[in-house]
Amino acid sequence: MNELVLPNDTNTLGNLMGGRLLHFMDICAAIAAQRHSHRTVVTASVDSVDFRAAVRLGEVVVLEATVTRAFTTSMEVWIEVWAEDNATGERRHCNRAYYTFVAVDQSGRPIPVPPLEPETEAERERFEAAARRRELRLVLAGRLRLEDAADLRQHLDALALAPPREDGGRG
Amino acid sequence: MNELVLPNDTNTLGNLMGGRLLHFMDICAAIAAQRHSHRTVVTASVDSVDFRAAVRLGEVVVLEATVTRAFTTSMEVWIEVWAEDNATGERRHCNRAYYTFVAVDQSGRPIPVPPLEPETEAERERFEAAARRRELRLVLAGRLRLEDAADLRQHLDALALAPPREDGGRG
Amino acid sequence: MNELVLPNDTNTLGNLMGGRLLHFMDICAAIAAQRHSHRTVVTASVDSVDFRAAVRLGEVVVLEATVTRAFTTSMEVWIEVWAEDNATGERRHCNRAYYTFVAVDQSGRPIPVPPLEPETEAERERFEAAARRRELRLVLAGRLRLEDAADLRQHLDALALAPPREDGGRG
Amino acid sequence: MNELVLPNDTNTLGNLMGGRLLHFMDICAAIAAQRHSHRTVVTASVDSVDFRAAVRLGEVVVLEATVTRAFTTSMEVWIEVWAEDNATGERRHCNRAYYTFVAVDQSGRPIPVPPLEPETEAERERFEAAARRRELRLVLAGRLRLEDAADLRQHLDALALAPPREDGGRG
Amino acid sequence: MNELVLPNDTNTLGNLMGGRLLHFMDICAAIAAQRHSHRTVVTASVDSVDFRAAVRLGEVVVLEATVTRAFTTSMEVWIEVWAEDNATGERRHCNRAYYTFVAVDQSGRPIPVPPLEPETEAERERFEAAARRRELRLVLAGRLRLEDAADLRQHLDALALAPPREDGGRG
Amino acid sequence: MNELVLPNDTNTLGNLMGGRLLHFMDICAAIAAQRHSHRTVVTASVDSVDFRAAVRLGEVVVLEATVTRAFTTSMEVWIEVWAEDNATGERRHCNRAYYTFVAVDQSGRPIPVPPLEPETEAERERFEAAARRRELRLVLAGRLRLEDAADLRQHLDALALAPPREDGGRG
Repeated sequence: MNELVLPNDTNTLGNLMGGRLLHFMDICAAIAAQRHSHRTVVTASVDSVDFRAAVRLGEVVVLEATVTRAFTTSMEVWIEVWAEDNATGERRHCNRAYYTFVAVDQSGRPIPVPPLEPETEAERERFEAAARRRELRLVLAGRLRLEDAADLRQHLDALALAPPREDGGRG
Repeated sequence: MNELVLPNDTNTLGNLMGGRLLHFMDICAAIAAQRHSHRTVVTASVDSVDFRAAVRLGEVVVLEATVTRAFTTSMEVWIEVWAEDNATGERRHCNRAYYTFVAVDQSGRPIPVPPLEPETEAERERFEAAARRRELRLVLAGRLRLEDAADLRQHLDALALAPPREDGGRG
Repeated sequence: MNELVLPNDTNTLGNLMGGRLLHFMDICAAIAAQRHSHRTVVTASVDSVDFRAAVRLGEVVVLEATVTRAFTTSMEVWIEVWAEDNATGERRHCNRAYYTFVAVDQSGRPIPVPPLEPETEAERERFEAAARRRELRLVLAGRLRLEDAADLRQHLDALALAPPREDGGRG
Repeated sequence: MNELVLPNDTNTLGNLMGGRLLHFMDICAAIAAQRHSHRTVVTASVDSVDFRAAVRLGEVVVLEATVTRAFTTSMEVWIEVWAEDNATGERRHCNRAYYTFVAVDQSGRPIPVPPLEPETEAERERFEAAARRRELRLVLAGRLRLEDAADLRQHLDALALAPPREDGGRG
Repeated sequence: MNELVLPNDTNTLGNLMGGRLLHFMDICAAIAAQRHSHRTVVTASVDSVDFRAAVRLGEVVVLEATVTRAFTTSMEVWIEVWAEDNATGERRHCNRAYYTFVAVDQSGRPIPVPPLEPETEAERERFEAAARRRELRLVLAGRLRLEDAADLRQHLDALALAPPREDGGRG
Repeated sequence: MNELVLPNDTNTLGNLMGGRLLHFMDICAAIAAQRHSHRTVVTASVDSVDFRAAVRLGEVVVLEATVTRAFTTSMEVWIEVWAEDNATGERRHCNRAYYTFVAVDQSGRPIPVPPLEPETEAERERFEAAARRRELRLVLAGRLRLEDAADLRQHLDALALAPPREDGGRG
């Protein structure tokens, strides 16, 4: 769990700039991936990020990053961001993202990472969903045909038939 | 068209950090949106970004941002990033992303933006694709049911049937 | 609990600069004080800080700050710093410090803060020790005569007679 | 003697942040220690620092650092900080601190430093006081028993009996 | 062509600081010199720079740098700066400068650069003027006697006799 | 007199970037102008600057700024820069520049500054030379005809006839 105040990285409206927040998120997610792999890690991709709520000057940003699944040399990291109102202490949810990192050796070449064993039910669900998100990334990047993305297709059908769920959009 | 050298925003391998690049891209895309709307703009979302190629210390990053479509108060900006090898002058493509910005007034409330009229064939294609990407964003954010995303469904079918195209993944 | 990677704030030996670490500690401690008081806080003093162990480039710094006691308008914050070795995940203790913050209103004037009720035995001990540290600060700043510092004198006697304890030096 | 304007390292009240000032003081004190030893120096400790007066945006901070005494491989540096009012040119005293630096060779190992010969009466006084402050540091760090700190005990008695002097608190 | 927004590098009046703009200009000009020479370049000199128009917070600075002439190991770069008003999109000219860069090898020694062949009439004029500016630099630096600066003398006579031209002052 | 260490504002060769040094010089010169005028000051122009000697990572930069003359609302500031070798303590001269600042009120409008009375012989010489440099600036900026620059013409003749002097180039 990581927390950071925001000194002067704000736009002309006194709000945290989106690009600056993405930078914080990248650092926070990299720490989580580094801790899992005990390796230097480099950012491989970021899934779509929604900026729901502006973060204001003087507020504390709370970032929480969790490795959801380790693939051969890469890890998916799930990151949640909240802003904390100073006067009331209330936290409001700002955004959520999935980053992918690759572990590298000292010459920058990918290197295998230890697997992640999900333990709780919630961890197992995120672990399963990580495979679907990975397929979606490959499809969106044009590297996999949708018809070959078995897991994802099932999920898209579910999406198409079921009412949109709070957390389902990215799952 | 924007260009920037990268002084010391590198990781321990001497490569540009992913989060730092996302910050550059945000600034560059914001300039494009600001020029279209003549308004202060705030980042609303970023579509998934793939970091294909590492950018090394001392290289020049070339960023090119184009507004593809204006919706009521928001604009989609398409941004391409290249790194330029100093010794040879060669550019290699690094990544591509779609940012969405909202134009705001001085108290931070959304305000309408002028429409964008596509002129060339390529502009028109991007303009059309912007609507599909917008549906995908809404579906992924759980705010639209896939069955109601008419444009997107057609596109997904195309994806599923056709071989993956170079630029089709994000189009 | 706060954690931060250290990008390029290092000296010519590749170690984190002492002044930069003091800056991180100040921010981390300020968040704790802000959370207790729900007010803007300003740094009033820092007790002596020992830099036992160098923090190297690429390591993660872990900072943990706790409010130990609230006085009328000020709060003492206890902060511990560790560095985390990337390859082994081991943490080594780097330093410990006590910061004092004053809560202020919007024109910068001191404003009362809610009291802190210690609950565990450890919290109660730190709460008591905070009074002694406060007396020591006043004596060292020449604002209190040692003979009037009842609590502290008792503590100094204890120090003088008892063998130095792990945590006693600053207590 | 070092002077610096303060552009945007301020908190939400428009005052210089305490941690930022500690960073400036560290750099300024390090220059003094580096000049005495002709070596790379690393911060070993900072004595307690009081922030008496806020420094406002746009003001000039004046920092003056003096090496007071060289021990085997370490040096004590005394640093005074003033803020200069722009409209009147008046300086007000902000704070005072003692930093300790260790001279190191290129692999970071401590290396002897030349002794410092005090010349004026004031220099001699600071030189003597440095030994007492060193004992206090060792006692506070739990590395020396108060009963073995001959110099310091004499000084504490003096403190306890004499009225607090302007400069005596830290002497 | 380079463009940059200016987040918080402003003075107490909310305008871009002169020194910060010089920094941007240096980076932009260095990119142009690096592209011509395919070498690392270091700044050798900057001709006099006039700050005609303040650049305000939130505006976009547009920088355009062109190599005007390559000498043996150095290159002259001509740079123009505009500020872009956000509300109207209008650009106003801010300043113009000539930077000189030297190409260096990996140990920092000057290394020859390829010549620049002017093609258009305007390029040829700038190419010729570059020789005069170089003589002026040498005279101003006390390394050339004015009587030996054949090209420059001719130019100074022209200046003295002809009415001042818009662009002639620096030409 | 101002001094600053250089942490990581270096290029790929480990030397201080020219643009970064210009930034330091601007800040240092602004302090001198601010102290003379007791006003906020903005940079109006910089005379040509030569970068004779590279400043290396870890060195101390010594900057010394003096107001040479006050005109109606502007002041000329003369600034000298040295780099200090850490191992030997030797200073080598890096460069010299003349900055011009304008004093402004709170809405940014120029405001008169007190005159400067030169006292020593050296001060009087710099005072006189400041008038010639001002004419040169106006001529180079195309705002004054060389034939109308009485002082400067005399000086150029001197330059043309006399052998180049150490300090004469800019005098």
